[in-house]
Formats: sequence, structure tokens, C-alpha cells
Amino acid sequence: MSRRRQIYEGKAKILYEGPEPGTLIQYFKDDATAFNAQKKGTISGKGVLNNRISEHLFTLLGNIGIPTHFIRRLNMREQLVRQVEIIPIEVVVRNVAAGSLSKRLGIEEGTQLPRTILEYYYKDDALGDPMITEEHIACFGWAGQDELADIVDMAIRTNDFLTGLFAGIGIRLVDFKLEFGRLWEDDYSRVILADEISPDGCRLWDMKTSEKLDKDRFRRDLGGEVEAYQEVARRLGLLPEGAD
Amino acid sequence: MSRRRQIYEGKAKILYEGPEPGTLIQYFKDDATAFNAQKKGTISGKGVLNNRISEHLFTLLGNIGIPTHFIRRLNMREQLVRQVEIIPIEVVVRNVAAGSLSKRLGIEEGTQLPRTILEYYYKDDALGDPMITEEHIACFGWAGQDELADIVDMAIRTNDFLTGLFAGIGIRLVDFKLEFGRLWEDDYSRVILADEISPDGCRLWDMKTSEKLDKDRFRRDLGGEVEAYQEVARRLGLLPEGAD
Ligand SMILES: Nc1ncnc2c1ncn2[C@@H]1O[C@H](COP(=O)(O)OP(=O)(O)O)[C@@H](O)[C@H]1O
Ligand SMILES: Nc1ncnc2c1ncn2[C@@H]1O[C@H](COP(=O)(O)OP(=O)(O)O)[C@@H](O)[C@H]1O
Ligand SMILES: [Mg+2]
Ligand SMILES: [Mg+2]
Repeated sequence: MSRRRQIYEGKAKILYEGPEPGTLIQYFKDDATAFNAQKKGTISGKGVLNNRISEHLFTLLGNIGIPTHFIRRLNMREQLVRQVEIIPIEVVVRNVAAGSLSKRLGIEEGTQLPRTILEYYYKDDALGDPMITEEHIACFGWAGQDELADIVDMAIRTNDFLTGLFAGIGIRLVDFKLEFGRLWEDDYSRVILADEISPDGCRLWDMKTSEKLDKDRFRRDLGGEVEAYQEVARRLGLLPEGAD
Repeated sequence: MSRRRQIYEGKAKILYEGPEPGTLIQYFKDDATAFNAQKKGTISGKGVLNNRISEHLFTLLGNIGIPTHFIRRLNMREQLVRQVEIIPIEVVVRNVAAGSLSKRLGIEEGTQLPRTILEYYYKDDALGDPMITEEHIACFGWAGQDELADIVDMAIRTNDFLTGLFAGIGIRLVDFKLEFGRLWEDDYSRVILADEISPDGCRLWDMKTSEKLDKDRFRRDLGGEVEAYQEVARRLGLLPEGAD
């Protein structure tokens, strides 16, 4: 452990140099932040659950042909991934009005959107991750036109697949955030799905009770954070039945 | 005057019922507001200048084939326009970084943008005119796909024309706001340019001195508001040389 070079420590994960060139180790912390890190806390056991959930979802997405950075899980808190050049855009996919969309546009939380909405946010903590559009992305060259087209395709396919997957286990996929990165091969790069998909970056509502099974429990001081993440893992078949 | 029915009083203009069905009278007030009407004031003589400037610009845009609501100026403060169903979107065209773009994305004011940016804001004072994208517009049906395509075309043509016009009189067209509306003819509607184009909704910088000739003088307490608007009118040939 001590020989490994730390590349980056973020709000929820640490990146270490991987065993081979072009690989990284993603270490999942229990740290939780919200509202651009104005609110901070710890959800004990979250890192273990997110590592496992993200592994599972990336594996399934890989199976349907969406290229991802995921290589394999190493242990409880770590996974080996392909190193990419992160595109500085958070892609948010929304199926149901919630959170900032509800607040900004005055649409009640829980309103089913007439159609799925893709939003982009510029990944810059100092600026508070401002919302941007394809216009800004093109103007400032944050992603090329072809890259953005690939990102849109992958985001929509991911949404279709995950909406189905979660529907199958009684969970409404309200919205979620994706990150993409460039994988360089000589002078050529292609865009693949990176970072993580976990209850930290998704809104997941129980279909029957509307109970929140995601980071909103932390953001809104609802309590029961780890139980909610566990419930998601359990329904995905990642925990033995009845275990908690 | 007293017989006319007032349709709407806004922050800078009053709308009255026009002399024929389907027409309105736009009355230009001297009232000025900024920051979503948190700042209020009066710029004595502004209404007269904006009425004249907007008449001039809409006439020139009409001449190059951009359909507008403008029919004719009636007097110092009033113009006759076609009544439209306003599309609830403010279209902002940006050639140079300034204002909210600079602030939100951390780009220094005055930076020439690598390419022109179109932005959309949802016209809703209570929500503070939040920025939106084509995704939100499509989702909530604020404009149809064909309408939006027409809006984009007209906004870009307007930008090209006005950038040239202002360049010819030593003024840099930094950014500006447009509004569009639906003109109904039986069951069919088409989109035309509405509202106004004046220093209230444009950023206009003197090319030599970088002096601001627009509402930023009011927003930023720079003084000399009416002189700036007069200078724009004068350069456009709307005031006798040397007059102020
Ligand atoms: N495959 C990858 N290669 C390089 N960087 C990655 C990869 N996957 C994710 N990242 C980046 O690693 C960081 C993950 O740590 P996290 O705690 O989420 O950071 P942050 O606080 O920036 O969100 C993020 O900045 C993310 O963009
Ligand atoms: N041709 C038109 N038909 C109907 N409404 C119009 C037309 N042109 C502009 N408007 C609307 O009239 C109002 C003009 O007054 P203004 O003081 O600018 O109002 P606001 O405070 O809403 O910006 C605006 O709401 C604008 O959308
Ligand atoms: Mg992150
Ligand atoms: Mg207005």
C-alpha cells in the first residue's frame, strides 16, 4: 500500500497509480459531501457498497457494449480501472423532476418528465459546477462534436438500461450523473464511461413507498444512509438475502 | 389616451391594445431595472431613445428578410407592433465574454469567444429567469423543434447583421438578448422577432476606448446612462450631429 503513488484525492474517492501503465486504482472512501462540499460527513460503509454497486453496473453496461474504464474489482474498497483523460463535464440524465431542476424551473419534485432531459455541468468546484450547454462545450473545446455525440448516445443507452434494471427491482431511476474520459491509443482517442455509478450520484426512489435510496438521505438529513445504499445493493443481488 | 386598454405593464415598457385587431402599442418607459428587478431606477429620456433605436434596428432587420413585429413608430415613446404570443424564452447571443457568462464560467470580461454562443433563459421573473437548454425547451414544450430551428437561424442572422452594423460605427457588439413570438394566421403560426433591441438588452462597447454604451452603466453605477444611449443613437444616425 505504502509504495503506491497517490494521483488524486477527491471528495469520495482516491486515485492511485495502477500496477500497469495506463491503469489506476480507484479507492472508495466513506466521505460524503453535498452542495459543492459545503456539507461534509461520513457514511460508514458507503465506500464498500459503492465499489460493489459500481462494479456491478459497469460490468452490465460493458456487457451491452458501452465501453467503460472498469477492469476488475481488487478488494472491498478498490477497483482497477483504465486511466483516462477526464472530460470536464458532468452529464446528468433526468427522467423525473427533482433537486436542482425542480428548484430552478419550479417543477414539483416527482413530476414525471414528458421526455428525458440531458444536462451538462462544467466540472469545476471553484465555480460550483455551473450548468452549461453544447454551445459552451463547443465554444471552449471541452469536448469535440464527435465526442459529444458519443457521450449523448452512451448516456441515453445507459439510461435505458439502468431504468430497466432498477424497474426490475422496484426502484425508480429519477436521475443520475455520468462522467466520461478519453482513452488514448497512439494519436487517436475514444470516449469511454468513467468514474462511478452509485447511490452517491443517482436518485433512486422505491417504487411503492417513494422512499429515497440515495444520497438525498444525507443531503436532506433523513438518516438511514447506509441502510438505503445496502438496500440498493441487496436488490441488485450483491448482498446475501436478509443480510444487513 | 384614456380610452386605450392597457394589456400589460412590464419593467421597461407598457403594452396597450392597438387600433386594429392583432396590433399592440409598445410604450417605452424611462424605468430601468437590473438583477431581476432587485435594482430599480429611472434613466430620463431612455424610453424615447430606445423607441427610436429599436425602430431603426427592426426596420433594418426587416429589410434583410427577418420577420419582426414592428409596424411603425407612432410618436416619441410609442410604436405599433403586431401582437404575438410571446415564446417564454430569452435568447442571448454572445460574441465576447461578459456579465453572467464571465462570472459563471470564470472567463475574463472582454475575452473574444472562439465562436458565438447562443444561450436560452426561461422568461420567469419569479424563478429569476433561469438558464435552460434545448432539452428543457423540448421537454416542456416551450417551443417546437421547428420553431427553435427558426429562432436559431434568426438569432444568428441578426447577430451577423448587427455585428456588422455596429462595427461600422465603431461599436463592438458584445452580446444581446432577443425575444420571439408566434404570429397566428388561422390554425398556423410562424415565429417572428418581437420585443425590442436597444442598449437595455445589448452590451455595446466603444471599439477604441472600450467605454460601455449600454445598461451596464446603470447596473454598475457608472453614471452617464442617457449620454451613452444618445451616443449609440447618434452613431446610428438617429440624432442630428452634435446634438445631445
Ligand atoms: N478512469 C479514470 N481516469 C482518470 N480519472 C478518473 C477516472 N475515473 C474517474 N476519474 C476522476 O477521479 C476522481 C474521482 O474521485 P472523486 O472523489 O469522485 O473526485 P471529485 O471530488 O473530483 O468528484 C474524479 O475527479 C473523476 O473525474
Ligand atoms: N409583439 C408583441 N406581442 C405581445 N407581447 C410582446 C410583444 N413584444 C414584446 N412583448 C412582451 O411585452 C413585454 C414588454 O415589456 P417589458 O417592460 O420588456 O416587460 P418585462 O418586464 O416582462 O421584460 C414583454 O413581456 C415582452 O415579452
Ligand atoms: Mg466525483
Ligand atoms: Mg423586457
